[in-house]
Amino acid sequence: MTDHFQALENYFKRIARIDHARTFLQWDHMVMMPPGGNQSRSEAMAELTALRHEMLISPELGDLLGRAAEGLQDPIRLRSLQEMERMYKRAICLPAELVKAKSLAGSICEHGWRSQRKNNDWQGFLANFQEVVRLAREEAQARCDFRPGHFPTPYDALLDLYCTGDSSSFIAGIFAGLKRELPELVRQVVARQKTETIADLRGHYPIELQQQLNRELMICLGFDFDRGRQDVSAHPFSTGGRGDQRITTRYRDNDFLDALLATAHETGHAAYEDGLPAEWDGLPIGFARNMCLHESQSLLFEKQLFLSRSFITYFRSAIHRLLPATAEFDGAALWAATTRVQPSFIRVEADEVTYPLHVILRYEIESGLINGSLLARDIPAVWDAKMIQYLNLSTEGNYTDGCLQDMHWSDGSFGYFPSYTIGALNSAQLFAALRRNHPDWQDLLAAGEAGFIRTWLKNNIWSKASSMDSQEIMQAASGEKTNPDYFLNHIRARYLEGLN
Amino acid sequence: MTDHFQALENYFKRIARIDHARTFLQWDHMVMMPPGGNQSRSEAMAELTALRHEMLISPELGDLLGRAAEGLQDPIRLRSLQEMERMYKRAICLPAELVKAKSLAGSICEHGWRSQRKNNDWQGFLANFQEVVRLAREEAQARCDFRPGHFPTPYDALLDLYCTGDSSSFIAGIFAGLKRELPELVRQVVARQKTETIADLRGHYPIELQQQLNRELMICLGFDFDRGRQDVSAHPFSTGGRGDQRITTRYRDNDFLDALLATAHETGHAAYEDGLPAEWDGLPIGFARNMCLHESQSLLFEKQLFLSRSFITYFRSAIHRLLPATAEFDGAALWAATTRVQPSFIRVEADEVTYPLHVILRYEIESGLINGSLLARDIPAVWDAKMIQYLNLSTEGNYTDGCLQDMHWSDGSFGYFPSYTIGALNSAQLFAALRRNHPDWQDLLAAGEAGFIRTWLKNNIWSKASSMDSQEIMQAASGEKTNPDYFLNHIRARYLEGLN
Repeated sequence: MTDHFQALENYFKRIARIDHARTFLQWDHMVMMPPGGNQSRSEAMAELTALRHEMLISPELGDLLGRAAEGLQDPIRLRSLQEMERMYKRAICLPAELVKAKSLAGSICEHGWRSQRKNNDWQGFLANFQEVVRLAREEAQARCDFRPGHFPTPYDALLDLYCTGDSSSFIAGIFAGLKRELPELVRQVVARQKTETIADLRGHYPIELQQQLNRELMICLGFDFDRGRQDVSAHPFSTGGRGDQRITTRYRDNDFLDALLATAHETGHAAYEDGLPAEWDGLPIGFARNMCLHESQSLLFEKQLFLSRSFITYFRSAIHRLLPATAEFDGAALWAATTRVQPSFIRVEADEVTYPLHVILRYEIESGLINGSLLARDIPAVWDAKMIQYLNLSTEGNYTDGCLQDMHWSDGSFGYFPSYTIGALNSAQLFAALRRNHPDWQDLLAAGEAGFIRTWLKNNIWSKASSMDSQEIMQAASGEKTNPDYFLNHIRARYLEGLN
Repeated sequence: MTDHFQALENYFKRIARIDHARTFLQWDHMVMMPPGGNQSRSEAMAELTALRHEMLISPELGDLLGRAAEGLQDPIRLRSLQEMERMYKRAICLPAELVKAKSLAGSICEHGWRSQRKNNDWQGFLANFQEVVRLAREEAQARCDFRPGHFPTPYDALLDLYCTGDSSSFIAGIFAGLKRELPELVRQVVARQKTETIADLRGHYPIELQQQLNRELMICLGFDFDRGRQDVSAHPFSTGGRGDQRITTRYRDNDFLDALLATAHETGHAAYEDGLPAEWDGLPIGFARNMCLHESQSLLFEKQLFLSRSFITYFRSAIHRLLPATAEFDGAALWAATTRVQPSFIRVEADEVTYPLHVILRYEIESGLINGSLLARDIPAVWDAKMIQYLNLSTEGNYTDGCLQDMHWSDGSFGYFPSYTIGALNSAQLFAALRRNHPDWQDLLAAGEAGFIRTWLKNNIWSKASSMDSQEIMQAASGEKTNPDYFLNHIRARYLEGLN
């Protein structure tokens, strides 16, 4: 029996080693590779991806899994087996032709999107996108059919890939609360901020000095450069493997705050990955739980920690030292400049107060698309109506800044958007629990001490990996499941009362 | 039939894609990876290596190869099949236990060597090394047994892995000629150089400016940065795949010539790889022919091209521009300083005149070890005797600068050393042919034009890949097989007559 389970673990560890190769080749592709390498890199990646898929759907694995539960009593192993089965079922439930068709339609649509967005060409996009939606619905149905009764709606079957454990009805309840409160809150914050004078932080900030500043921030946040790297890429991201977390940042020479925020954010992602238990390395039970928790870690580092009044006041001295042109901005000025709220068209540029409304809009549209209550061709009208309702902005005829702005849907990644906002809610809720545990948190951050945050997160989130469901983790860490009140309280405190 | 051959090609292309992953993960390991990533990277590499080996020795491939020759008439395909079979046979002829034992003994011995070399600890090294030699002899015998009559000696079976096509008797004949001529030549050159005053080039040369200078050299030598990169590593090397050649250099801030020479050298390796025919990508017929030709390309770029009086006189202006402290050195001074000859202990630091004697010594020892005429424990005495005979230097009791100086043997890479010198001979011979084809070569190089060299090498060497034997390539390109006279003439011209 033990030997049998060992064989199963070894099987998944082999898959994880192929994934290690894919991860770092992908990093290289984004950060290092010259354009001439594209063709052979794409071929190699496709080969490894196919190989991984073959390993995951092989009868050998099905057989190992089928016989594993027999006599298994250790609760951790039972849980480990459950996570292995989740990974196996996710792969084997889709017919090979569907996987291929999806990949093809996704890359055609995404490729077209790059120019169609620029050209405000909704009709051109729609022509490709309808096939993507059709295949995504087929995928959702296939996932439902494979596990009868498991997913309450087809959309849940896709949501499960990113927000594993958080159902659409659970999320809908939470989003309903946010929709009730946020539009009015946004109005109040905007009105309040109208009375404030905000320093203009733009200037000339040499990239090399910004790099050093961001490196200092990472060290201050506990990043270990013996176990990771920071590089430059067109869009900030984080990736990596055991003992080797890699984040990227991009720099603009007229702005230093954007890069610092991105660095804090990606450092949070990297911290979660680096804090996963070594003994579960390569096993599904050892993976980060879901994207809602992943995003909660990055947002906790970015919005709760870095943007806290105490920390930014502390870190200001490093900013002044490396970028002397910032000397005129004190802690309050920096804090005020980084916490501006303004309804706007673009999600990725939105402040933390309006951001959830962008996500709720997308959630409502994509769930309708997959569950069949909305057709792709009706997206622009619905988008415009909801933007007016939530943010009082019209996108009529403006697809570039409306429904064509994100890449997610073009390649068929439906179900991802909610994780941004559930992550934001989780981060506020976890930080509130953390503050209860450390009443002196402001003194600690004002002294540049972030170690207590890492320790608490390691004990309560990172070390759990996938050994519990996401809401079990939230419950154990914070005393309750995801509850939007913590986020709303955080927004009120920071933006209406000028606290934290 | 065509479908069958296509299946065979696809099979090898799949292996090549795994090799692509191994290549770039290895590059990352050497150039980018933080120390914390070592464990998981090693595991992933071992997984991919095992996977590649399994693919190569699979009955499926054996079957495909066995039925491929039937009715095959196209000479290129016949040649392609022959190279596939060579790769297959090299892998399948060794029992799995031997491969494993060899890998284990090699890594133990190499690991120990790192400290033993520093500590002059021959006895400690010998304890591990005897097992490495025993297994290498076993390997050589297994390779001979698999192809009865193919290898004239066991050593030839290992030599074949690096100097494919150049037998030990052929090499021995060439080395005999060098042994007759070189010791006396060295004496003459040293005596002549005693009368010259040589400028001391040491100074302070900022690394960033050196990097820019080396980049300019690469561009001048035809390197395309859209199809490759240059980075920094502890030891210069080159690697890569289709459309993505990566070389590394190391810099010292008191010396600028070392890095330039290494850059020219690695640019030559990269040029060969980049010039291999795209239509044979991933197929054994499309690989670089052997290490003797590979080294000939790097040495041609380094010693024949870069170190030619014409080119260094041209490139001097870039050196002066980026490193103003060098302004006092004219072309003749630079050339004189880079062509010093002095018998010394360390192969990797040796000048091109004494270098072959270091290689011949190693060749004689390693062939004796593998063929059974020499025991590992007798190496220090033989080393000392040959060093005295060839270079008039004694290494008695000095293992650090004697038989412990190289890493090659510690991990069982016997048969590699000859390629350095056959490569040097080939480079002189090919460059002589190139000069006959371009009588104005000195004018071209003096104007910084290196394109004619790339064109000639592409037509005569790179485009042949492995579609011909190494000596067929030499014959077609230069009119004869490897002949040491060209190298000796080059040495006489450069070092006794002050030409080229």
